Amino acid sequence: MQEQKALLVGIDGGGTHCRASLFSIDGQTIAKAKAGSANISRDLLTAKHSIVESVRQVLEKAGAKNRDAIGHTHVAAGLAGYNVTASQLDLERWKHPFASLSVTTDLHAAAHGAHASNDGAVLIAGTGSCAAALKSHQLTQIGGHGFLLGDKGSGAWLGHEAIKLSLLRYDQLLDDRFEPLRASVFDYLQVSTAIELVNTMISAAPSDFAKLAPSLFTLADNGDTVARELLQQGSDYLCSIARRALVLSEGSLCLVGGLTQSLLPYFSADIVSRVTQPKYGAEWGAILCTQMINSQLD
Amino acid sequence: MQEQKALLVGIDGGGTHCRASLFSIDGQTIAKAKAGSANISRDLLTAKHSIVESVRQVLEKAGAKNRDAIGHTHVAAGLAGYNVTASQLDLERWKHPFASLSVTTDLHAAAHGAHASNDGAVLIAGTGSCAAALKSHQLTQIGGHGFLLGDKGSGAWLGHEAIKLSLLRYDQLLDDRFEPLRASVFDYLQVSTAIELVNTMISAAPSDFAKLAPSLFTLADNGDTVARELLQQGSDYLCSIARRALVLSEGSLCLVGGLTQSLLPYFSADIVSRVTQPKYGAEWGAILCTQMINSQLD
Repeated sequence: MQEQKALLVGIDGGGTHCRASLFSIDGQTIAKAKAGSANISRDLLTAKHSIVESVRQVLEKAGAKNRDAIGHTHVAAGLAGYNVTASQLDLERWKHPFASLSVTTDLHAAAHGAHASNDGAVLIAGTGSCAAALKSHQLTQIGGHGFLLGDKGSGAWLGHEAIKLSLLRYDQLLDDRFEPLRASVFDYLQVSTAIELVNTMISAAPSDFAKLAPSLFTLADNGDTVARELLQQGSDYLCSIARRALVLSEGSLCLVGGLTQSLLPYFSADIVSRVTQPKYGAEWGAILCTQMINSQLD
Repeated sequence: MQEQKALLVGIDGGGTHCRASLFSIDGQTIAKAKAGSANISRDLLTAKHSIVESVRQVLEKAGAKNRDAIGHTHVAAGLAGYNVTASQLDLERWKHPFASLSVTTDLHAAAHGAHASNDGAVLIAGTGSCAAALKSHQLTQIGGHGFLLGDKGSGAWLGHEAIKLSLLRYDQLLDDRFEPLRASVFDYLQVSTAIELVNTMISAAPSDFAKLAPSLFTLADNGDTVARELLQQGSDYLCSIARRALVLSEGSLCLVGGLTQSLLPYFSADIVSRVTQPKYGAEWGAILCTQMINSQLD
C-alpha cells in the first residue's frame, strides 16, 4: 500500500449496483469492488450502506488491512438521485467515515469519465435512463427524471411497461398476440392472478422492475413481436435523447450502463455511427468531475 | 337520536375523500360527512384517521353528542386498497373505536349500492379507475390494479400522463403542439424547470396527480388537441373495461366517481346508451355488501 493520504476511491452508484474503484494518483486502477443499490433519493439508508460497503471491500481487496484505512480514504461518488434537492441535503448531513466525500450525479461522473472531461455525449441505460452533453465542461441533461416521471427505455421502464401490458392482457383488453408476454411476466413473478401480481409489486423498487428486462430480450430473440415493439419503443426514445446530446456536445457518443449494449441492435444508424468507446469509467469520472485531485488532495 | 345500538354508518373510502353516511335501519340517510384520503394500501395511518374522523363528524351532525356514541356505532366501509392482502391484514389488527367494523373494497360497495345488490355493471373513475360486473351476487373486477400498475383513465393517471408529456416537451422531444400542456402543468405546480418539477412530485400521492385533471378539461374545452387526445385515450380505456363489465353482468351501467360525468362526452355511444342512475351510493352499498343488517345487528 502507498502512504495513507493517497487512498483515492471513485464510486459509480446506480439504482442496482454501487461500484467502487481504488485508484493511484495518476488514475491507474488498483482494485475494484461492488455493492448494492446507491440511489440516494430512492432509499438513502441502503445507498449509504452500499457506499461504505463498496469502499470497505475495495480497500480489503487492495490489502489495506488496518481498520482505520477507511478514515484515510478520499471518496468521489457519482450517485443516482443526487439531482434531487432533498437528497443533496440528506447527504450533506451524513457523518460519513471517510477522510472526505465529494458527490456529483451518476450522470456527471459517467460523462466526465467517458470523455476525460472533454466535449462529448453519453447515453446511459441501466435501471434508469438519461443522456447528457458535455460541452466546455458544462453538462446538459436530457431525459432522466426518475422511475416515476421519466427514465423511458430503461430496465425499470421496460419491466414496468411489460407488467402493465400483462395486466391489460389478463383483463382480456389485449389480443392473443400479448399472451406470451403475459405468460412470461406472470411466470417470472410466480403469480397466477392480477391481485397476486399487484401484491408482489406494490412496494417494488425500480431495480425490481428492471429484473424483468432480460426476459423481454429472450422473448424478442425468439421472435415475439410484442417484446420487440417494446424494446424498439424504448430504443427510439433513447436515440432521441442521444441525438439531442450529440447536437449539443458536437462530440462523439459513449454508451454507458448495462442495457445499452443489449439495445444497440434496435438503435438507428445515425446514432450507432457516432458511438465511440469511453476513455474511463464513471468511477474515475467522479474523481475528474469533482476535481478531487486538485482541490482536496495535496 | 334513536337508541344507541341502531347507529349504522356506511363509508365510501377513496383515494381523495372518505365519505360517511349515518343511516336508519331501513336505509334512510340521517346525516352525511366527509374526511380525507382512505386508501389503506397507500397510507394506512391517514386512512384510519379519515375513517374515524368521518364517523365522528357524521355522528356530530346527527346530534349524537355523547362521547361514547362512536363506541355504539356499527360501521361498514368500502375502502380503496382493501384488495391488497397486506392491507387486509393491517386492518384486521386495527383496534378501532367502533362497536363493529366490516370492510370490503370500494368497488364492491359501489357495485352493490348502484344496483341494490342486483345484476349490473359499474364504472368508477376518480383518483383511481376500475370496472366491475355484479352477477348473481358475484363480483368480477376489470382493471384497477392501483396507480403504479393500472388505473388508466383515472384522475391520477391523467395527471401523471400530463406530467410525463410535459417533461418530454421540456426536453424538446415533443413539438410545439405540446407547449400549452407543458405551460399549464408547470404553471399549476409553480415550477420552471424539470428538476423543480421532479423535486415537487417525487413523493406525491395519486391524489396529488389527480389534482391536475381539472386543468386538462379546461385546456380541452379551449380547443387544445393534446389535452383532448389524452382525455380520449383515458376514456377509450374506461369504455373498454365498462364494455367487458356489461357483457359479464348482462345489466345496465352505473357511473361512479368524480371523473365519470366530466369524461362522459368522450365515451362511445354503445356505452352511453347503457348508462342508468345508481339506486344507492357506495355508503349504503358497503352495508348491503357486508350484509351488516342481517349478520351484525339484531
